Amino acid sequence: MDRLTIIKVGGKVVETPDLLHAFLDQFKKISGNKILVHGGGSTATEIAGKLGIETRMVDGRRITDRAMLEVVTMVYGGLINKKIVAGLQARGCNAIGLTGADLDLIKAHKRPVKEIDYGFVGDVEDVNSREIRLLINESVVPVVAPLTHDGYGQILNTNADTIATEMAIEMSDYYSVYLFYCFEKKGVLLNPDDETTVVYDLDHELYEKCKNEGIIVEGMIPKLDNAFNAKRNGVKEILITNPENIATGRGTRLV
Amino acid sequence: MDRLTIIKVGGKVVETPDLLHAFLDQFKKISGNKILVHGGGSTATEIAGKLGIETRMVDGRRITDRAMLEVVTMVYGGLINKKIVAGLQARGCNAIGLTGADLDLIKAHKRPVKEIDYGFVGDVEDVNSREIRLLINESVVPVVAPLTHDGYGQILNTNADTIATEMAIEMSDYYSVYLFYCFEKKGVLLNPDDETTVVYDLDHELYEKCKNEGIIVEGMIPKLDNAFNAKRNGVKEILITNPENIATGRGTRLV
Repeated sequence: MDRLTIIKVGGKVVETPDLLHAFLDQFKKISGNKILVHGGGSTATEIAGKLGIETRMVDGRRITDRAMLEVVTMVYGGLINKKIVAGLQARGCNAIGLTGADLDLIKAHKRPVKEIDYGFVGDVEDVNSREIRLLINESVVPVVAPLTHDGYGQILNTNADTIATEMAIEMSDYYSVYLFYCFEKKGVLLNPDDETTVVYDLDHELYEKCKNEGIIVEGMIPKLDNAFNAKRNGVKEILITNPENIATGRGTRLV
Repeated sequence: MDRLTIIKVGGKVVETPDLLHAFLDQFKKISGNKILVHGGGSTATEIAGKLGIETRMVDGRRITDRAMLEVVTMVYGGLINKKIVAGLQARGCNAIGLTGADLDLIKAHKRPVKEIDYGFVGDVEDVNSREIRLLINESVVPVVAPLTHDGYGQILNTNADTIATEMAIEMSDYYSVYLFYCFEKKGVLLNPDDETTVVYDLDHELYEKCKNEGIIVEGMIPKLDNAFNAKRNGVKEILITNPENIATGRGTRLV
């Protein structure tokens, strides 16, 4: 099977112009089929604040009421997505910006209300691999914003790690998928303040041990849960790394 | 040649939920290949205002400084574009939202500064018909936001009437293009307050006469200049009408 690289990028990397340019330079170097999935949470928080809309998070997940949905639709689907697309086009990379609504790419349903009402947050139901393959076959590079739709006209806010994971699983029927979660650090660190403590090979046993000992905490837990989910579901290789190493392939590898 | 319908919609139609839904119901009824180009100026003005960014217009054209460019990128490329896409998907219409940067669809250059510095406003250089035809051949409906790029990473704000016109001219090499400028009124009116005074057939001589007599004024002039430009450049049929009549084809026809 052909190789397909799916890169998820978020945090400061997409929100700091210099870091974004450096990342796009690296992304451009990846040969063959590729997809970029981006976040953009703190820009959304900042713009929401200026508009007088309060940001509420539960366990690192954004509560998305109707006003916040408009903000994330603007910021993820417009501002950040189109900056990345224009930046890739400038590098000779034929990018196309997409949300889950475009081409009916990612269908989701509004998360059921249990203890917490997350509002207009989508749980992914289905990834439309046919349309993605059509684009890839034309050497187009999809740039996917963390938004889905329910098929009845409702846009839904959806975690970018989850979108990257679900796309990687779905595309594994057709490609050898290399899934990179890209963030500020060199990988999973045994000591979060010491970049020399990268865990190069992480298996599920070590992950559980690190969780129990409080070494892996907070935002890293849903990210790694997503990553192990991908590993169990046919994704060939999964790496957690920083922008400088997406071309070298160094970082934390799931084994 | 196959028929291709290009509809430009703007003003209140895209910014009022009920009118937008009614419009999308009509748009859905158009058979065959179609493209939708949308505006969204007053939403951009409103959100800019909430963000403390002043809107300055010259002859109905928006001065687009760096802060305003971020607003229009968010509002046109994100908020309005994705609402329309999700609304069309709900109607079984396989829409894809695009700006000129996506797929390198529309290249422009920043307007040279003469008497007025319009800022990050783009004058269209080139429409990439190949990529549009690929989408159309897959029965995809492009939904185009009024944004272009310069190929060097810069997004540019570009008038939606102009984008619709340039696309219509370019696509006329491959299709019989029907170009509809859709707005609130039934067509060009001899008396702007009386909807029964629609000019059904408008030739260039009558247009000049109406301009000289002050019957056609303000925003209608650049719209009609665009329309006559399309007429001179191979676009098969040009209609100025309201949402209710895009399916019937009634309105002001350029002859």
